[in-house]
Amino acid sequence: MTTDHDIKDITLADAGRERIDWAFSEMPVLRAIYKRFTREQPLAGARISGCLHITTETANLARTLRMGGAELVLCASNPLSTQDDVAAALVRHEQIPTFAIRGEDTTTYYHHISKALDHRPQLTMDDGADLISELHQHRTELLATIRGGSEETTTGVLRLRAMAEEGALKYPVIAVNDAMTKHLFDNRYGTGQSALDGIIRATNILLAGKIFTVAGYGWCGRGIAMRAKGHGAQVIVTEVEPLKALEAAMDGFRVMPMFEAAACSDFIVTATGDKHVLDTAHFEIMKDGCVIANAGHFNVEINIPALEALAVVKQRPRTHVQSYRLKGGRCIRLLTEGRLVNLAAAEGHPAAVMDMSFANQALSMAYLWRNGTKLTHSVHQVPVNIDRQVAQMKLAVMGLRIDALSPEQRHYLVSWRDGT
Amino acid sequence: MTTDHDIKDITLADAGRERIDWAFSEMPVLRAIYKRFTREQPLAGARISGCLHITTETANLARTLRMGGAELVLCASNPLSTQDDVAAALVRHEQIPTFAIRGEDTTTYYHHISKALDHRPQLTMDDGADLISELHQHRTELLATIRGGSEETTTGVLRLRAMAEEGALKYPVIAVNDAMTKHLFDNRYGTGQSALDGIIRATNILLAGKIFTVAGYGWCGRGIAMRAKGHGAQVIVTEVEPLKALEAAMDGFRVMPMFEAAACSDFIVTATGDKHVLDTAHFEIMKDGCVIANAGHFNVEINIPALEALAVVKQRPRTHVQSYRLKGGRCIRLLTEGRLVNLAAAEGHPAAVMDMSFANQALSMAYLWRNGTKLTHSVHQVPVNIDRQVAQMKLAVMGLRIDALSPEQRHYLVSWRDGT
Amino acid sequence: MTTDHDIKDITLADAGRERIDWAFSEMPVLRAIYKRFTREQPLAGARISGCLHITTETANLARTLRMGGAELVLCASNPLSTQDDVAAALVRHEQIPTFAIRGEDTTTYYHHISKALDHRPQLTMDDGADLISELHQHRTELLATIRGGSEETTTGVLRLRAMAEEGALKYPVIAVNDAMTKHLFDNRYGTGQSALDGIIRATNILLAGKIFTVAGYGWCGRGIAMRAKGHGAQVIVTEVEPLKALEAAMDGFRVMPMFEAAACSDFIVTATGDKHVLDTAHFEIMKDGCVIANAGHFNVEINIPALEALAVVKQRPRTHVQSYRLKGGRCIRLLTEGRLVNLAAAEGHPAAVMDMSFANQALSMAYLWRNGTKLTHSVHQVPVNIDRQVAQMKLAVMGLRIDALSPEQRHYLVSWRDGT
Amino acid sequence: MTTDHDIKDITLADAGRERIDWAFSEMPVLRAIYKRFTREQPLAGARISGCLHITTETANLARTLRMGGAELVLCASNPLSTQDDVAAALVRHEQIPTFAIRGEDTTTYYHHISKALDHRPQLTMDDGADLISELHQHRTELLATIRGGSEETTTGVLRLRAMAEEGALKYPVIAVNDAMTKHLFDNRYGTGQSALDGIIRATNILLAGKIFTVAGYGWCGRGIAMRAKGHGAQVIVTEVEPLKALEAAMDGFRVMPMFEAAACSDFIVTATGDKHVLDTAHFEIMKDGCVIANAGHFNVEINIPALEALAVVKQRPRTHVQSYRLKGGRCIRLLTEGRLVNLAAAEGHPAAVMDMSFANQALSMAYLWRNGTKLTHSVHQVPVNIDRQVAQMKLAVMGLRIDALSPEQRHYLVSWRDGT
Repeated sequence: MTTDHDIKDITLADAGRERIDWAFSEMPVLRAIYKRFTREQPLAGARISGCLHITTETANLARTLRMGGAELVLCASNPLSTQDDVAAALVRHEQIPTFAIRGEDTTTYYHHISKALDHRPQLTMDDGADLISELHQHRTELLATIRGGSEETTTGVLRLRAMAEEGALKYPVIAVNDAMTKHLFDNRYGTGQSALDGIIRATNILLAGKIFTVAGYGWCGRGIAMRAKGHGAQVIVTEVEPLKALEAAMDGFRVMPMFEAAACSDFIVTATGDKHVLDTAHFEIMKDGCVIANAGHFNVEINIPALEALAVVKQRPRTHVQSYRLKGGRCIRLLTEGRLVNLAAAEGHPAAVMDMSFANQALSMAYLWRNGTKLTHSVHQVPVNIDRQVAQMKLAVMGLRIDALSPEQRHYLVSWRDGT
Repeated sequence: MTTDHDIKDITLADAGRERIDWAFSEMPVLRAIYKRFTREQPLAGARISGCLHITTETANLARTLRMGGAELVLCASNPLSTQDDVAAALVRHEQIPTFAIRGEDTTTYYHHISKALDHRPQLTMDDGADLISELHQHRTELLATIRGGSEETTTGVLRLRAMAEEGALKYPVIAVNDAMTKHLFDNRYGTGQSALDGIIRATNILLAGKIFTVAGYGWCGRGIAMRAKGHGAQVIVTEVEPLKALEAAMDGFRVMPMFEAAACSDFIVTATGDKHVLDTAHFEIMKDGCVIANAGHFNVEINIPALEALAVVKQRPRTHVQSYRLKGGRCIRLLTEGRLVNLAAAEGHPAAVMDMSFANQALSMAYLWRNGTKLTHSVHQVPVNIDRQVAQMKLAVMGLRIDALSPEQRHYLVSWRDGT
Repeated sequence: MTTDHDIKDITLADAGRERIDWAFSEMPVLRAIYKRFTREQPLAGARISGCLHITTETANLARTLRMGGAELVLCASNPLSTQDDVAAALVRHEQIPTFAIRGEDTTTYYHHISKALDHRPQLTMDDGADLISELHQHRTELLATIRGGSEETTTGVLRLRAMAEEGALKYPVIAVNDAMTKHLFDNRYGTGQSALDGIIRATNILLAGKIFTVAGYGWCGRGIAMRAKGHGAQVIVTEVEPLKALEAAMDGFRVMPMFEAAACSDFIVTATGDKHVLDTAHFEIMKDGCVIANAGHFNVEINIPALEALAVVKQRPRTHVQSYRLKGGRCIRLLTEGRLVNLAAAEGHPAAVMDMSFANQALSMAYLWRNGTKLTHSVHQVPVNIDRQVAQMKLAVMGLRIDALSPEQRHYLVSWRDGT
Repeated sequence: MTTDHDIKDITLADAGRERIDWAFSEMPVLRAIYKRFTREQPLAGARISGCLHITTETANLARTLRMGGAELVLCASNPLSTQDDVAAALVRHEQIPTFAIRGEDTTTYYHHISKALDHRPQLTMDDGADLISELHQHRTELLATIRGGSEETTTGVLRLRAMAEEGALKYPVIAVNDAMTKHLFDNRYGTGQSALDGIIRATNILLAGKIFTVAGYGWCGRGIAMRAKGHGAQVIVTEVEPLKALEAAMDGFRVMPMFEAAACSDFIVTATGDKHVLDTAHFEIMKDGCVIANAGHFNVEINIPALEALAVVKQRPRTHVQSYRLKGGRCIRLLTEGRLVNLAAAEGHPAAVMDMSFANQALSMAYLWRNGTKLTHSVHQVPVNIDRQVAQMKLAVMGLRIDALSPEQRHYLVSWRDGT
């Protein structure tokens, strides 16, 4: 029987498998869970639909869930992030129905989500909440049998919290994004390295000595700012939250409104989770040659229609660069059509980072399969013991040992009578 | 009428006032509150006893509370941190009864707390929870009229949580330490700079190229690690929490158990909040010349009696250095008798940092005076609007402007229907 | 008339031209020289043979020389660094005879040099001294009419100094590498960014928290160390020179012999200019999964035959990764066959860096054409006024203004009578 | 027989000796030379006059020279840098005639130099070239018997080169400053740490988030910039040399003319070696509260008379701070009267840094005593074998081992025939 699928090219399957294996070698925590799931079958019989970036790391999560007993179907969570060889390998070598084509248009994108929902999932996995949103808006007949879902991103969690607030959320969702072992590592170190990687691959421009603006000083933004500084750039941060702005200033970054930053920057990267962070007013005062990119989940952070409207000439000097020449001759260079630059121009987060995120995903799926029916229809934290367990596993595979409290020290921490 | 006091030398008062004024010039947020308090008298009639480090910054908090209508009495929160000229200035120029002498012994220390309690406070302020602990153990007759208290430190909050857990806490306490505008700035940037400052003043040793171990990767520990790295040292972090250990490793620091770190370090600084982090086993394998210091609240982190027991010769080569020569000839150099190195060898947190901490203190005191009787007898967070207000005031005085969300952007953040 | 050539695929010419133009937009100093050369024709009639990395930046140097009046022929200076689309564009769009195919074998490589020499150059340009060495060993009949040459790299300059020492060098060569505006920028910032870029593209491994060893703390090595640190890695430096080793230690890096570093590293990158820096003894104690790469000019720094001899299984998990499984099961991953990782796995130095290096090249060629016959047959520095001119042009295009000395200040600097 | 002297207070001698011994424990290279000099007496009979900062480190150099057989006399090289307890210890415990009082006026300063010259030196040591300048202008009768001198600073070497250029220099001088093991370490790491230390001790202001301008990107300037950045400040560099300005920009610093920097800075530190780097035009646009300090050798970098002329009120809020209130109410805070902030407000370079500088001094003195009469009357480099010897000794005492070239590797470096 052939595995159902809609992918680019099945002949890429072997190349995909090589890369998936390479990634697995960098995911020791997930490998340990894979072994345990194979033995314990904690997902026996569970139907899961996952709307995730179809990358080598996701493939390893998929393998792990499948070995744990799940029947899994996958679709893309972003039209530009699919790695076509991985999609092929999932279909051919893992027998996992997959619906994802790099560069698919919005219609196909939603058609693929629809195919993933046809699986009648009992558990869902999201990366940006598109599947769960679709499900609640257009496929409500499926809600009855769903035990729970998980969400991977800051953006998705925001959307889900908004749903829950409205009373619109109809099953429990675990905010994998909020696990300490997820967002501290993935959003900061993962996005930090991979966003810079994407920008450099896309442009091959030297960062040292350049002015580099980061919009948003959340976990992703500070990862990007840290790495841009590590490349020798002079970094500016823009924010809307006073506290984060203060922190950025105390961390040694320049802080100013975007309108001022836009006028002097060589690079601007958005990582805010909000829309139109770069808009007409900014385009109109940018320096000639300014490179703009987005590292936030959706391609709304840069108002591309507004940029198109200003442009008199469009060129594509490099694969991932769209150059817009404005009246007056200044040129603005947009990367990867405003989509996640780390996934579109590079390979997304390194495997070692996704290792922890997906360890949380796998363990959360097993938890929901066992306990989902007992949970309220709201956004839940990853259980603390899962988070801590992932941290300990990671530390072990890195070969790092740490101190343990003595009984005397443990006691001291909870006593209050002894003072100075 | 003379202001009651027990201080070192009243003739230092003018010198103290000069330094207090200098600090005030670096505390623009507190200055703004000072003006408002003078006008609005939010603490009219309140009797406050404060057990705080008697520094120039504390003096400015004291001034501010007094201008807000409070009757204030102060005592030291650490035997070595008092600045005698400040104590003198408080008595002579601010008419605030003060009980604090740098280098006082433990008996005097507790006698001074007792004097502060004789004031029959309605509000208390602690920095380490010594006054509140004393009050709950030995002066329970005072509890009835107390509306609330505040606590400045991580250590004190830990003690108070332990008290609350036991049901032993008899009035509401606000954990000023936990305000974002306090611990993010004070514990990280403040302790970072001032602990290094203390170590350099105490030793004048070059840090570049040295191996520098930090015990504990909490906010204080990471501040110290960051600044030691900023001085060109090679930094090692020790931890007992897997997650913090992971974070330290990902931040580029070496992570290992203290037993290994102690054997190769040129400097070791403790910032854990726990006892005997450096103990006999560590002293026995330290390198010749190793400098050890404490940046945690209490002087229990280094087991000094154990070190004394190992020493065959003791010398004091510099004011703040005690050198212990062990059998076999190795020498260990202990700074400031294991007490807070930033306060004992330098001047504690810079005023600009304390500005935000004490803005939270002042506003929390006013809040408790107004609302204390309505609160449960437990540890409370600083009200969110106080925290945010402090952040905005700080940003304004730093001359930093930030972006504001447009209505469209604000709406986008709470919508969930629009996706890819 | 067709331009003579031996390249991969002429149909890549248009793609190549787009990328060359993109690079030119990042090379404002060279653009200014291009305009001047077009006007002044300082190389009118000069036959130049260049043995250089055939990249977009080199193409812009070639354009500039040609517009200055030179008849230019190019061949590759490394078998793996040629960008085939650039070679095609040079032939088709610039009419510059080019002999370079990415991945050519050694025989073809030297055949291409031979073709470049058939041009009977009056000026030569080298990047590693292969052409000049070939010329002095096998084509001595050409020496008589040569006015001078230039050399781009540290490695090449070392070879030429050895030749000059032996009295074997038969015409003057300008060490472009030694220009301040070349080696300070190109070797440090250029190699720093591009070597890391190559490693990340080749592996997509997270650097944060990893142990990263750099062999050699010359300008390239310190660039790599600086950027690895900027990615959150823990960096070790190995050296043979006491002074450089000291400097590395004072810069906060760990310093140790390679034998110890090899045993604990996740990454090892060589940048020494010497051979067999990684050899059997090191392979035998490396950690499982260790990634090794070379950023030095020649592929002799890693003893690959010795590694091959130890391997029991060879795999290629990713395009630029060769995985060697040793007896006992440990795996060593060699990048880009030990050739320059920044050129083989990424795109070499960013254009902005090469801008200054090639500005020096272009101006040095013009200088040699005018003055070469007057110079001794030895290695010469780039004339100081060329170096300074390049610095000023770069500063101007970056939009940076600096201070100027007042006459009074200028006088003070050369007076010695006024003291304290 | 009493040792001749003019010092502050002989009763400080014991305290001084303790601190000198402490410093010696941080100067292992000099200790090794001390032992060798004691044995070999390489300076037997030499009369030396030294005009140096009278600090604990200098005292250890003096001890070493004396143990090597020299008859030594010392005077201060800066009116504010003398440590009075050290001066006392030199007189009482080392029997070295010393003429130096912290805070002495210019008349006394030159009188002290005169006393040092009365010793009729055969060798001289300078730190800023005041003694040698005095000697050549007013004590020419002493020139005949002088074999040579040494100079410690960039500033002094500049003055001596100017003298040599004019033909005014009458004996050979070794530019100790130019030894690699001196200026790379002392000027960069030493000045970096100690200048920041001085500023923090003087002000106790938090650096994180502040704008910190460094005038001059020489070795001292880049040390200061690096450490200011390491404290979390946002650093601006001003320069007059295009190449250094470029390097600063590529290192991630902001670069602009001082006129712009002065308008936005919280701190400005001069390290240029030139005069009036901060002048009336800058004072007139500085921010209220701006802190200005000098880390260059002479107190001419800030035009203090011009600042005095602008001031309407002067205050001294802290020991090392002079506050000038200008018309309009803005306040400028000058540290340590514009003298070297690291020596005047802190303790100068840490001993570990001076260790290498003074090792070069001691070995250069011995070299001049042996070879001085053979050298030309110009500025000489430290002999290469001295520089390298110091590096090796330092590495050894730091416990660092490095690689050695194999014969095969050594051969490869000088061969030129083998290429790609």
